Amino acid sequence: MSTENKPDVVVVGSVAFDSVQTSKASHEKLLGGSASYTSVASALFAQTGIVGVVGEDFPQDYVAVFETAGIDMQGLQREKGKTFHWSGVYEEDMNNRRTNCTDLNVFADFNPVIPDAYRTSHYLCLENIAPALQGHVLDQMEKPKFTVLDTMDLWINTARDDLMGVIERVDLLTVNEHEARHLTGKGSLLKAAKKILEMGPKYALIKKGEHGAFLLSKDDILIVPAWPLIEVADPTGAGDTFAGGFIGTLAALGGVNRENLLQALVNATVTAAYTCEAFSVDRLRQIDRAELDARALEFRRMLP
Amino acid sequence: MSTENKPDVVVVGSVAFDSVQTSKASHEKLLGGSASYTSVASALFAQTGIVGVVGEDFPQDYVAVFETAGIDMQGLQREKGKTFHWSGVYEEDMNNRRTNCTDLNVFADFNPVIPDAYRTSHYLCLENIAPALQGHVLDQMEKPKFTVLDTMDLWINTARDDLMGVIERVDLLTVNEHEARHLTGKGSLLKAAKKILEMGPKYALIKKGEHGAFLLSKDDILIVPAWPLIEVADPTGAGDTFAGGFIGTLAALGGVNRENLLQALVNATVTAAYTCEAFSVDRLRQIDRAELDARALEFRRMLP
Repeated sequence: MSTENKPDVVVVGSVAFDSVQTSKASHEKLLGGSASYTSVASALFAQTGIVGVVGEDFPQDYVAVFETAGIDMQGLQREKGKTFHWSGVYEEDMNNRRTNCTDLNVFADFNPVIPDAYRTSHYLCLENIAPALQGHVLDQMEKPKFTVLDTMDLWINTARDDLMGVIERVDLLTVNEHEARHLTGKGSLLKAAKKILEMGPKYALIKKGEHGAFLLSKDDILIVPAWPLIEVADPTGAGDTFAGGFIGTLAALGGVNRENLLQALVNATVTAAYTCEAFSVDRLRQIDRAELDARALEFRRMLP
Repeated sequence: MSTENKPDVVVVGSVAFDSVQTSKASHEKLLGGSASYTSVASALFAQTGIVGVVGEDFPQDYVAVFETAGIDMQGLQREKGKTFHWSGVYEEDMNNRRTNCTDLNVFADFNPVIPDAYRTSHYLCLENIAPALQGHVLDQMEKPKFTVLDTMDLWINTARDDLMGVIERVDLLTVNEHEARHLTGKGSLLKAAKKILEMGPKYALIKKGEHGAFLLSKDDILIVPAWPLIEVADPTGAGDTFAGGFIGTLAALGGVNRENLLQALVNATVTAAYTCEAFSVDRLRQIDRAELDARALEFRRMLP
């Protein structure tokens, strides 16, 4: 494959069916998974390739969603068996959810293979998969300019050594406030973020859901509140979308500096809000770059 | 009294002894009360007069704190009896507190009398006292340019009609997130703020503690995150300080427009953070305007 087909951003993670119930609605087998949200968000800003696995039951309609978003699918494996299926129920306030089932199916044996054309991509987003597999992806890449790593409680509990090994190899670790406290043992989020920097990354990006996010580096802190949403339809994937909007923006702007990081936080916030406005990536895939840029500008104007 | 002694800002509220216990320290009979915090913060920016009541036991040291801050004390009544005494204990995470005692003492019969020189002041901050008394203060003022009203759960529960009557007479209602939900019956803070605007005020200022604040008007929203505090010594009075920094800034800038409101939110955030750095107004009274302005600039630089 020619290097012209090299995506700016490579996203590795899960592609899933999500069955989601909120107090207002319930939907079965929606397009979900961390890599889906992250790549659809990233593709709004930059050429994006997705690396993941689906089963034989993964419908053409969902493939078409990636296609329409302009996402490169060379790294999307199709294996015998069923697609990963997650099912959960949100409480009334949308801040807490209960998982009903996590049927890993083909995702249980996921072995991420990075297509040759992706190996020299500059921006890499390692969404939440086993830390050993995240390390395996890093082994296949030729030193990306900027790597973002996400993780979850499961790996903090069950694969801490592997996780620490991969954390020290990346530029930025992104976790939510609960994971930050769990990983570091620090109650204060600022202390937790400082502790994350001691683990190796140059940046710690702490996501606080409806309360925004902050990005800590050795001698700087950038803070962004959340976009003011009057109604949340479904928050599933908001954090993954945030990561996608963030890394896509950095890739589009062509480098990591203070101004670009601030814009990346703004675009991440706005894309994550779109995700919350509907189930799955339904709202996110309706918008175009002009609409997003307008909202990003409107958002900056709300801030001092 | 000459109008030269007219303060820019008049603050009405409680002056108290606070006995505060945190997981790290415990202090008895500190200078506290909503009017104390608000006026010390406001006085950093504009000429401020305090209206409140203390008992015979109120020490000269605490009078000296107001004096040194440049606060006009014509409206500070000294009555027979003891000063209002509040005592509380914070949980480890500083987000929840338990009240041990609330001895109203002379505050039980507080009848706010506005000194003649204050009646034409342009900025009025009605801190949390009985709504009927807040209305009584408004009756004594000659139409201030901008009035800020604070309240608490007690009055929402026990004096709702009086409270609604005074809310419709002010320009801005400031409440914390819990009070906003309680007052309006809305779970979503944005919906709660919209509902507050329907009650009469042009602005609803919702304080979210460590998550910042937002200011809603009919066709605009301004959002500010909190200053990133690595350690909170004592959050008592942070909300009152926020109100003081806010109204003091508006008075200093001489009017209410979008740019001034944004600067007021920044200064409010920064002054409130100083309050959290020590017990009572101890940190707040150490700082000068230059130090505060430097931190405010630093804060704006952290935001997109």
